[in-house]
Amino acid sequence: MIKINENFLKLRAGYLFPEISRRIRAFQAKNPNAKIISLGIGDVTQPLPPAVIEAMKKAVDDMADADTFHGYGPEQGYDFLIDAIIENDFNARGVKLDRSEIFVSDGAKCDIGNIQEIFGIDNIVAIPDPVYPVYVDSNVMAGRTGDADKNGQYGKIVYMPCTADNNFLPDLPQNAVDIIYLCFPNNPTGAVAPREFLSKWVDYARKNKAVIFFDAAYEAFITDPDIPHSIYEVEGAKDVAIEFRSFSKTAGFTGVRCAYCVVPKQLKACTKDGKIVEVNPVWNRRHCTKFNGASYISQAGAAATYTTEGKNQIRKMNNIYMSNAALIRTSLTKLGCQVHGGVNAPYIWMKTPDGLDSWDFFDKLLTKAGIVSTPGAGFGPAGEGFLRLSAFAEPRNVKEAMKRFAAL
Amino acid sequence: MIKINENFLKLRAGYLFPEISRRIRAFQAKNPNAKIISLGIGDVTQPLPPAVIEAMKKAVDDMADADTFHGYGPEQGYDFLIDAIIENDFNARGVKLDRSEIFVSDGAKCDIGNIQEIFGIDNIVAIPDPVYPVYVDSNVMAGRTGDADKNGQYGKIVYMPCTADNNFLPDLPQNAVDIIYLCFPNNPTGAVAPREFLSKWVDYARKNKAVIFFDAAYEAFITDPDIPHSIYEVEGAKDVAIEFRSFSKTAGFTGVRCAYCVVPKQLKACTKDGKIVEVNPVWNRRHCTKFNGASYISQAGAAATYTTEGKNQIRKMNNIYMSNAALIRTSLTKLGCQVHGGVNAPYIWMKTPDGLDSWDFFDKLLTKAGIVSTPGAGFGPAGEGFLRLSAFAEPRNVKEAMKRFAAL
Repeated sequence: MIKINENFLKLRAGYLFPEISRRIRAFQAKNPNAKIISLGIGDVTQPLPPAVIEAMKKAVDDMADADTFHGYGPEQGYDFLIDAIIENDFNARGVKLDRSEIFVSDGAKCDIGNIQEIFGIDNIVAIPDPVYPVYVDSNVMAGRTGDADKNGQYGKIVYMPCTADNNFLPDLPQNAVDIIYLCFPNNPTGAVAPREFLSKWVDYARKNKAVIFFDAAYEAFITDPDIPHSIYEVEGAKDVAIEFRSFSKTAGFTGVRCAYCVVPKQLKACTKDGKIVEVNPVWNRRHCTKFNGASYISQAGAAATYTTEGKNQIRKMNNIYMSNAALIRTSLTKLGCQVHGGVNAPYIWMKTPDGLDSWDFFDKLLTKAGIVSTPGAGFGPAGEGFLRLSAFAEPRNVKEAMKRFAAL
Repeated sequence: MIKINENFLKLRAGYLFPEISRRIRAFQAKNPNAKIISLGIGDVTQPLPPAVIEAMKKAVDDMADADTFHGYGPEQGYDFLIDAIIENDFNARGVKLDRSEIFVSDGAKCDIGNIQEIFGIDNIVAIPDPVYPVYVDSNVMAGRTGDADKNGQYGKIVYMPCTADNNFLPDLPQNAVDIIYLCFPNNPTGAVAPREFLSKWVDYARKNKAVIFFDAAYEAFITDPDIPHSIYEVEGAKDVAIEFRSFSKTAGFTGVRCAYCVVPKQLKACTKDGKIVEVNPVWNRRHCTKFNGASYISQAGAAATYTTEGKNQIRKMNNIYMSNAALIRTSLTKLGCQVHGGVNAPYIWMKTPDGLDSWDFFDKLLTKAGIVSTPGAGFGPAGEGFLRLSAFAEPRNVKEAMKRFAAL
């Protein structure tokens, strides 16, 4: 008989965001007139900038004419987009990359979920806690984690607690690990990684021949000139790091779907016999076998984010979100709440008051104030006692939410 | 040290289509003036129908206004598309499906590459030969196949030869298998599956508690009213089959990216201990964890293919390809070639003349006639001695190609 992949049965409860949606629907069903404000799921609210709209309309027009029609594109993405990525996201910051090191996709969630597949099942995985659930769940599905304990932690994962004590910057592990997930600016804590912190991890990875999966989906929100946007700004990182980028948060593409990852040619792994293998061609094979390229229209839109016009429009758009973040920070601080993040990052990480657990405070905020947040426990045990508030919202809604917070 | 997934090292040579592209580039570099005609990779050439263009432009406009902006959609797809799929592709053919049984994605290649992941590694896989390479390669990557022999066949796969003797319809395997890949209308042979053939396989799967992965990406080319478009038109198939559909070939979406798969709620698998597990929620979890929904713009375009206008325009477009197929069939038959397929299917499966092997004949056609085909051996050992010709081309190019064939 057909046998299921039993690793899937080791997954804890529902995936975080569907569970939140379920609770919102239940509340709204009982309270049809309640005006819910979402500071929960990190989804953008601003319309796409005019430069992107124009480029996508032109791309749709291209599809209407046999002479400009685009069928299958290169699985790795069109050169027009790859070249813009290299020039603007890397060359401009002193990082040189080759076209063949960029893989355009339909989303960073897919890339970061899929990347572990090209590495052996017996690699030791180090994951920050709290963390974006996809890092953990994709490893559970692959069979790399063992079973969960009663706290929802998996026996074979090395957890790296990120707490106020270490400024939400994980410490190096005591024992050697092979795969390290890092995300900066961080989801959910809003922490950012100074250069010396990244250098420390790159040195660790080089010494231990580990690989770092660097999730930089929120790099566009960095305003401090001293904070690196890419891990490759750190010497030696190309030997040990794969970087993930997305147009979702950078440019409001959550509904458009375009992202990319960087797999440097000099990154190496080994076989059990110690034979050295280049990682880039293995990922290329995976990418070409199980993916057929991102939409031409989405790629055309993504390329427009790198024009002078597009850049200005996106900066303005992201300033709206960063003003929201500042407002949330200052309002909650005034109310005596303990808050982290929200500077160089669109997320605010708030300590729950009165020792409430995070799902209880989530429910309280939802039912008493009509505010949707994300309970910290959904990101891992060290997230217990915290709540993530997202700055991706309409400014008037953020203002209203802060009033409701004050009333509560 | 970071260890590679060594299953990837068991893959044979390059993925078929990149290898073909490489040979074309090499030829074109040496012969810059050669006018190459591609009957190779199965990529559409007709521009998108006006109904689709209009719907996508409206969708782009929606993204320009905060009131109609679409961020993250449901991972499973928008109801407006799911409802149109159920009504038109299934209800209209007497098949009832629930919304939760449809999973919209960005491509059938992704779905069919990913689906094996939710099933255990020790399932026995039966794969037709010749076959779309993704079925084999995704199982090699997962570690389900063992090593390849010198013919490129993997020890643990049960191959089902499809030859002129069995009308390119695979026979039931002698020993029990767990996962069965079927594709009809077939890529690459152009064979179609009569109802009684599908019934035989559904009965086999029910008896052996196996699952059928039914790839129906080319169903739009079926014109014979007696040929089922969906495997669910066969009694009992919902207990044993997952079906894959795509807008790529149906509606010219290869560059737009939209597809879906159907995972019926009544489909069950088991654990090693014999516990019964519903497959639908497991796939749903996989889909929500590693995918973030197809582009809103692509989904809006896909929904337009189901309008009265859209349907008429698509029918006209596909008639162009089917006229090409008929022309290739009749021209090559006149030349004394042995050809199969090309009726109810956009592919013609041609026996290579003079006992040439398929890559040699591919090279000969490319270098002597400037025609790109796909060598049968690229689809598996039983494809040796055949060539796939695609009807996805401009009619004038097909006419020219047939002249060149005659001259050759």
